[in-house]
Amino acid sequence: MSKHRMGGQTLHLTQNPPKIVSRASIVGKKEGEGPLAEYFDRVLEDDLWGEESWERAERRMFIEAAELALRKAKKEPWDINYLFGGDLLDQIVSATFSARSLGIPFYGLYGACSSMTQTMSLAAPLIDGGYADNVLCVTSSHFCSAERQFRYPLEMGVQRPPTAQWTVTGAGGVLLSSCGEGPYITHVTTGKVIDFGLKDTNYMGAAMAPAAADTIKAHFEDTGRGPNDYDLIVTGDLAKYGRTLTIDLLKREGYDIEDRFIDCGCEIFHESQDVHAGASGCACSAVVLAGYLLKKMEDGLINRILIASTGALHSIITSQQGDSIPGIAHAVAIEKKG
Amino acid sequence: MSKHRMGGQTLHLTQNPPKIVSRASIVGKKEGEGPLAEYFDRVLEDDLWGEESWERAERRMFIEAAELALRKAKKEPWDINYLFGGDLLDQIVSATFSARSLGIPFYGLYGACSSMTQTMSLAAPLIDGGYADNVLCVTSSHFCSAERQFRYPLEMGVQRPPTAQWTVTGAGGVLLSSCGEGPYITHVTTGKVIDFGLKDTNYMGAAMAPAAADTIKAHFEDTGRGPNDYDLIVTGDLAKYGRTLTIDLLKREGYDIEDRFIDCGCEIFHESQDVHAGASGCACSAVVLAGYLLKKMEDGLINRILIASTGALHSIITSQQGDSIPGIAHAVAIEKKG
Repeated sequence: MSKHRMGGQTLHLTQNPPKIVSRASIVGKKEGEGPLAEYFDRVLEDDLWGEESWERAERRMFIEAAELALRKAKKEPWDINYLFGGDLLDQIVSATFSARSLGIPFYGLYGACSSMTQTMSLAAPLIDGGYADNVLCVTSSHFCSAERQFRYPLEMGVQRPPTAQWTVTGAGGVLLSSCGEGPYITHVTTGKVIDFGLKDTNYMGAAMAPAAADTIKAHFEDTGRGPNDYDLIVTGDLAKYGRTLTIDLLKREGYDIEDRFIDCGCEIFHESQDVHAGASGCACSAVVLAGYLLKKMEDGLINRILIASTGALHSIITSQQGDSIPGIAHAVAIEKKG
Repeated sequence: MSKHRMGGQTLHLTQNPPKIVSRASIVGKKEGEGPLAEYFDRVLEDDLWGEESWERAERRMFIEAAELALRKAKKEPWDINYLFGGDLLDQIVSATFSARSLGIPFYGLYGACSSMTQTMSLAAPLIDGGYADNVLCVTSSHFCSAERQFRYPLEMGVQRPPTAQWTVTGAGGVLLSSCGEGPYITHVTTGKVIDFGLKDTNYMGAAMAPAAADTIKAHFEDTGRGPNDYDLIVTGDLAKYGRTLTIDLLKREGYDIEDRFIDCGCEIFHESQDVHAGASGCACSAVVLAGYLLKKMEDGLINRILIASTGALHSIITSQQGDSIPGIAHAVAIEKKG
């Protein structure tokens, strides 16, 4: 077995674990009215941000989050070996068009809303192994660009069922480096695509929960760790119902995570903000990690977390053709002292 | 600078360079009538392959190519640490749904038609650094699923201009391993997103040529190598006009690659097959590499190649919104003796 594997799906980064040396988060107006507002670097006054389309506004947020993460670390684009980016739009055009502006060697990823931890999962071993010094990881989503692509034109005013989730408008980024100060990525657990046969695109938390449970379980089995080894276990955007399902699925496997388990999709909006089950989108776990969680780590309030962004991997055409919704979750363990 | 970087955009894999221990290629009927027919493992009799939709036929080709690459190497899915996959469909559903069937920890990538060398570029350092023993890299495309997504319903019979390319129906895969026999990946040069402002989605070879030239130039500059260090320099799917442009762009930079430069998009069909400028699609460079080029290396006819799959990173919505077409190319150097 290769030397940095723990068996199963987990890497243990011990050579030169990447440090998260800077972080940036930008969110839309609604997110700026939520409970985490104070943690975000920037809140837009309106979701079009002076651009001609929502897609261009999303792209501008992506670029801004990337540049802000660089500025905070006093780095220039040419200091960065790779940009890993992803988003929800067809052909991930937010990430690719942003990469064009940034001019950094680019790998585009698609893991739906699991993209944030996917970027970090791929970047981390490159730094640990001495293949990169600085890797920028950024993802974005936009409520309006996602709604019109995946669901209905907003102008139709289609009613949303209680299990529906609200795509976060925002972009979040972290800069991983071989040197500098910041919490470390110590473990990477790569997800499998899991599908329990659910088909309701307005109930994606349920479709993703089995993948979240599967990856968290794999992480515990591979590392010999359990819930008590983490101050916080975090998922990306399972929202209210998906979160409960994940707790139940893991209880069946003998792991009780309930007292230290949060889902970014449940944290970013107030109940009163009428988002139904909670939030979703590539930006959901990206901005909650970059804005809120890493700040809590900086402040010493939490020291070790496991975060698994979660993605629903369907498309319009697979749903139209009667396919169910596969899910995936990639987990990274982050701790304050290496 | 981190120890395995050559500066610029290139990694030099020297610890345990990954071996290409097996390869598989499946193509559609039209590709099976082309000049490379004898090199492919399997040729479909019709492009629906008994499935209910072209999308499902594409997915089945992806799975079949993956399983065939495993069988040839006498490996089972549980021997494989990661599947890296990509395709052209929205939300890369061919790759993700195939990953569901295969049950291998999965990273989904989107680089349009550059995806094949993108999968290899990301997999190679993981093996070299001891983070993985076996990584399966697979990409697919299907003429019919791509046409209806990106252009017009086939039933409309829209006329295609001479610069248009024909999406390859097929799937190609390679298994990279830390041990075993096969040619090595020695260098990885990661592309930047390059955009010369072209907007014609029926002339994508021209949109991608600047990216191909940029990556090949970066490879030469980073490594100190030149055209004469390679038996063959290969691009993914620039087709007839894009190939000529790339030669010209590189000549301006002082590199004359013309006498050893082929484009997979020019090789896979006969002129008489009425594909206009040539072929394209994620499967184009995947099946030409897995079927033809690696066979030529096995037979000792070529010993060292540089292959750069090329991608056009637009979407329907970016074209509708008046954006130009950004391109990208990722290059890997493969040689017979490590």
